[in-house]
Amino acid sequence: MKNLPEDKLTPAAACTSPTLRDIGELGAIERITRSLPNRQDVVVGAGDDCAIVRTGSSATEDLVLTSDPVIADVHFTADAAPESIGHKALGRVLSDIAAMGAAPRWVLVDIVSPGDTPIDVIDGIYRGMGRLASEFSVAIVGGDMAEGGSLEIHVFGVGSVPTGKGLLRSTANAGDLLFVTGNLGGSALGRHLQVEPRIDEGVFLRNWASAMIDVSDGLASDLRHLIEMSGVGCDLELEKLPISDAAEDMSDGRLAVEHALYDGEDFELLFTIPVERRDEFSAAWKNEFDLLCTQIGTITSNKEIIRSLNDGRDATIIEKRGYRHFA
Amino acid sequence: MKNLPEDKLTPAAACTSPTLRDIGELGAIERITRSLPNRQDVVVGAGDDCAIVRTGSSATEDLVLTSDPVIADVHFTADAAPESIGHKALGRVLSDIAAMGAAPRWVLVDIVSPGDTPIDVIDGIYRGMGRLASEFSVAIVGGDMAEGGSLEIHVFGVGSVPTGKGLLRSTANAGDLLFVTGNLGGSALGRHLQVEPRIDEGVFLRNWASAMIDVSDGLASDLRHLIEMSGVGCDLELEKLPISDAAEDMSDGRLAVEHALYDGEDFELLFTIPVERRDEFSAAWKNEFDLLCTQIGTITSNKEIIRSLNDGRDATIIEKRGYRHFA
Repeated sequence: MKNLPEDKLTPAAACTSPTLRDIGELGAIERITRSLPNRQDVVVGAGDDCAIVRTGSSATEDLVLTSDPVIADVHFTADAAPESIGHKALGRVLSDIAAMGAAPRWVLVDIVSPGDTPIDVIDGIYRGMGRLASEFSVAIVGGDMAEGGSLEIHVFGVGSVPTGKGLLRSTANAGDLLFVTGNLGGSALGRHLQVEPRIDEGVFLRNWASAMIDVSDGLASDLRHLIEMSGVGCDLELEKLPISDAAEDMSDGRLAVEHALYDGEDFELLFTIPVERRDEFSAAWKNEFDLLCTQIGTITSNKEIIRSLNDGRDATIIEKRGYRHFA
Repeated sequence: MKNLPEDKLTPAAACTSPTLRDIGELGAIERITRSLPNRQDVVVGAGDDCAIVRTGSSATEDLVLTSDPVIADVHFTADAAPESIGHKALGRVLSDIAAMGAAPRWVLVDIVSPGDTPIDVIDGIYRGMGRLASEFSVAIVGGDMAEGGSLEIHVFGVGSVPTGKGLLRSTANAGDLLFVTGNLGGSALGRHLQVEPRIDEGVFLRNWASAMIDVSDGLASDLRHLIEMSGVGCDLELEKLPISDAAEDMSDGRLAVEHALYDGEDFELLFTIPVERRDEFSAAWKNEFDLLCTQIGTITSNKEIIRSLNDGRDATIIEKRGYRHFA
């Protein structure tokens, strides 16, 4: 109850109200999103990587809107270079925009920091953001600065996608094949700061994928979001998972495949392709990108669970695990 | 140097880099905005109440983008009701959108809070935001939640205005008359939590005002922004200032007029009207609104200073003062 209006709660409420830690990040978000004020020009509201809104009935493009905070001691540690912090803060938002198949255009940046923060640190954060913004033709058009107890960067991003072409989490179909870009796991060894937003890949996938999400909370967790919102299930073929060298190098006693499943902040794209387009898709991808793209499973009509297949024998349910605030 | 990457700074830089407190909020913002990545579809970048961007060459509306944080112990105290905190967080952003002559449409909300925050508090914040959002037909389309040391609400807002009709701070002309809505000063007694965003008034002023800003840092400070960005000056007629009852009630030994000049968070509109439209404007305003609208000065070509006139005799320079982070 730090910094909170204790005396405005009735004593009963103060005693009986569960806390954020009690109900968790997803519980709180589910509770909040039950009754948000809406408008007719909102195509997709809270719950996907970005919201989708339509500026007018004759618009040729939809806009995607998203925001992400990075916070000291949560998303970065004291030994991170300011440039890396800035890069990550913007990179997370660009990854969300990529997951919609959209192109990023404009961002705003709120920085909260203690008054004794050296201006060199702020310069470094902006240098890191600026470099990534330039790479993807993104304009930083404003924001705000405020004093607070620890360093935080909140980035708000706007992207665009041809009307009706935004890719959702909720549209995977039984029979579709599940793919992921790049390699998974072990981002804590450094890659979490070096987000490479898959913008070009996301724009390309706009014409191929039936559903898409970015891997930010961890493969198992983000795949669960995708299947639950699509009302489907998934046979995940563990032996096919593209495991990063970092996941192999993690010396914490856990298997590399566990890191690939449960570590967060890979910032790769996880998407589904209709099975009849498999060969055509694979050829088109190879023609366009050097980046690894691996089929790791199949969408099923068996809701609720994700089965892991090891050579078709050892079917188990993947744990509900991944990074959570307030856990 | 709390939570900051000390070891990535060279010892020399760590010793010699000024801090945010040394250069202040405006100094930091000026430094940051010198070299932000830009795009051709940005009509107005950082520096106004909102940025203005254009979605396409055939678009009939421009979008305005803005963000504002409210932070425990900075923007509200421990005795504020959660509903009021939510109301203020959204109200500040709507006030920025109003200052562009735009209509608000969509917002995202990032909440940072300690894990032991009662969910009732979060519910209350959303209830306060939701009520205000519904009043102005604003959709809350998403956002994020993260764990942090103190309660913060970051609101990112998008509004729209007919193409090219967004009102700026930088377009006042010598000879224009200076007006302000409502009454000024003493918001600390409670009004800072009860922001009434002047949306309808802002939309109306789109067809009348030559320049506009909202009074958030305090009249003297925001008027200075307006004249500096317009390259003009202002004769401010102190005896005409509409002083709030709260400013009269502040029992801190300062004059009510000082509160009207230097207190922040009035969230009224400060704007300029070409002198030849004075009578027509006043009639149209009275026909449309009950809200007080007062002519308080005249824009001059005498840059750099704001003179205060008391019956034309006692001309003094208004102090550079107002709310500043890192001060």
